[in-house]
Amino acid sequence: MQIKVTKTQNPKTHPTGSLGFGKYFTDHMLVMEYKDGAWGEPEIKAYEPFSLDPACSVLHYAQGVFEGAKAYKNEAGQIRTFRLNDNVDRLHDSCERVCIPSFDKKLVQEGIEELIRVDGDWIPTGEQEALYVRPSVVGVENALGVRAANNYLLFVILSPVGAYYENGLKPVRLLVEETYVRAVRGGTGGHKVIGNYAASLKAGEIAKSKGYDQAMWLDAFEHKYVEEVGAMNIFFVTKHKKVLKVLTPSLGGSILPGITRRSIIQMIKEKGIEVIETAVPIKLMAKMAENGQLLEVFGTGTAAVITPVGCFNYQGKDRLVNGGKMGELTTYLYDTLTGIQYGKIEDNRGWVKVINE
Amino acid sequence: MQIKVTKTQNPKTHPTGSLGFGKYFTDHMLVMEYKDGAWGEPEIKAYEPFSLDPACSVLHYAQGVFEGAKAYKNEAGQIRTFRLNDNVDRLHDSCERVCIPSFDKKLVQEGIEELIRVDGDWIPTGEQEALYVRPSVVGVENALGVRAANNYLLFVILSPVGAYYENGLKPVRLLVEETYVRAVRGGTGGHKVIGNYAASLKAGEIAKSKGYDQAMWLDAFEHKYVEEVGAMNIFFVTKHKKVLKVLTPSLGGSILPGITRRSIIQMIKEKGIEVIETAVPIKLMAKMAENGQLLEVFGTGTAAVITPVGCFNYQGKDRLVNGGKMGELTTYLYDTLTGIQYGKIEDNRGWVKVINE
Repeated sequence: MQIKVTKTQNPKTHPTGSLGFGKYFTDHMLVMEYKDGAWGEPEIKAYEPFSLDPACSVLHYAQGVFEGAKAYKNEAGQIRTFRLNDNVDRLHDSCERVCIPSFDKKLVQEGIEELIRVDGDWIPTGEQEALYVRPSVVGVENALGVRAANNYLLFVILSPVGAYYENGLKPVRLLVEETYVRAVRGGTGGHKVIGNYAASLKAGEIAKSKGYDQAMWLDAFEHKYVEEVGAMNIFFVTKHKKVLKVLTPSLGGSILPGITRRSIIQMIKEKGIEVIETAVPIKLMAKMAENGQLLEVFGTGTAAVITPVGCFNYQGKDRLVNGGKMGELTTYLYDTLTGIQYGKIEDNRGWVKVINE
Repeated sequence: MQIKVTKTQNPKTHPTGSLGFGKYFTDHMLVMEYKDGAWGEPEIKAYEPFSLDPACSVLHYAQGVFEGAKAYKNEAGQIRTFRLNDNVDRLHDSCERVCIPSFDKKLVQEGIEELIRVDGDWIPTGEQEALYVRPSVVGVENALGVRAANNYLLFVILSPVGAYYENGLKPVRLLVEETYVRAVRGGTGGHKVIGNYAASLKAGEIAKSKGYDQAMWLDAFEHKYVEEVGAMNIFFVTKHKKVLKVLTPSLGGSILPGITRRSIIQMIKEKGIEVIETAVPIKLMAKMAENGQLLEVFGTGTAAVITPVGCFNYQGKDRLVNGGKMGELTTYLYDTLTGIQYGKIEDNRGWVKVINE
């Protein structure tokens, strides 16, 4: 279907200099409202503030979900999305977890693609730059009863972003968190629900206050098994008796099923290296780091794509990984995946879609 | 200090008929903003929508907390708050859990009291009616990086409310939830963080779809111990070898430290009945219900004060409590606590504060 587009009368000046992450927003947004028991038509209109009643349900009960995706523009002017359909699928799944009504996935994907085209001149083309796509769905009924809202707002905003790490892709230092937990089986950690992120802030601040970059999360039950790092999935590259194996926590309801995670697992397997989705004991990883069997550690996520881990502190002791440097497999995966995303390497997996041809 | 008050130019018509819960709001609200590293002055002004940027952090990462308190007006025109200072204390504690900057508790309490006075003519005086007070603090920075916001909005709105249960105080039927969990130690369940409530919606909907009123939550680890019911704390009145004992889940980080819970514990103890804060095994409660040793079950919370439980379904089998009727101790506690709140019974515990004398 044709998406209704009402262009802004007041286009903004494009940012100059370092873009940072999620600081600048484009001229338009996609909005679709749910009321009287049904979703309305999606509409592209000027990016502008929402008028939300102080009793608006998302402000009180956090009934909301979101996604993060990226679009790229190459030298030929092609606009490319990366697995956007998977993001829309996951947004839909996340809605179900917090009782937000089901929406038409195809229609929302078309709306997002049209929005990206409308603001196509906002897509930055510098090194590691991209257009970050942020779809959200939140409850907007003005009532304080604790129940699913009757009204919802689906909205998509776009942010031209630079490299996620302003000081470049240098390995991060992690603090293993043993008190606070990000999620638990039966909770919302396996979905992109907005409340998960507020819950994660404190451990991040503790890590920073102790001189680390981010927290490494352990399981809520025994504090023995690694779950995620910051807001990313995590991979451990091990070598035992000359055999390379990559371990990553299995999805058990408390871990976000990352789209970058899934891409990376496929890429490692295609390279002929075994990937084991399993419970990853932090003690074993610490021991393997000490005796040289832990070759590389890295996080994955849409925002930073791949983040090498140079060190993790477990129970007061720093464990260095690969001498604190980015490893060989991490570098290969980063170069290959971003190469596919930016169109420098051919996509033969069906991940990239050119949306302006 | 003097709170700045700017009265509305457009007072609303007061609702007539059944008030319900959290559906109507008064003419004014209290607002206090945090920016540039400091809280500004609180201000009372017209209740009106907030203008929030689509990138506003609370919409994306749910960095927010809230409280629920009540104010009452008696026939003499006295306006009375119930343990409002405890709500302000807990709001402050909740902020700390999700990295919201500390505020001046005394100032906020004074602001809330002034707001209640300004909208004093909105306090309903019918049977079981009260003024519900909803303080909230949310992150309002327009940026998508996952970190604590730099800007916050503390706001307080007031809602004239009727009886929480529109069909009267009849015992509710609960479905024990064994898949989804509300909270886990190390998470945010022990604080009034907005994300906890979105996480609880699905189990509530499942319970309703099966003909029950609310979900009874079990612990996240073993699904063996009772935690809460709906958004309330829970109490079990047991009789074994002629000795009456009241059990309630101990606060272990995953259970909200309810102010009504604390009041009820004190009242039961003052009646000479033992209250044990402990892990409460659901299997044992089911067994005691079957052999007549479970005399009463009730939930506690600000909104409904006390909610009798007439039945709970555990593993497919309904367990009737007190023949499905509200029990003797439950009735005594309800009558006494609401009597104190409405000024019909003298408050000798320092819970009530008259704020307009």
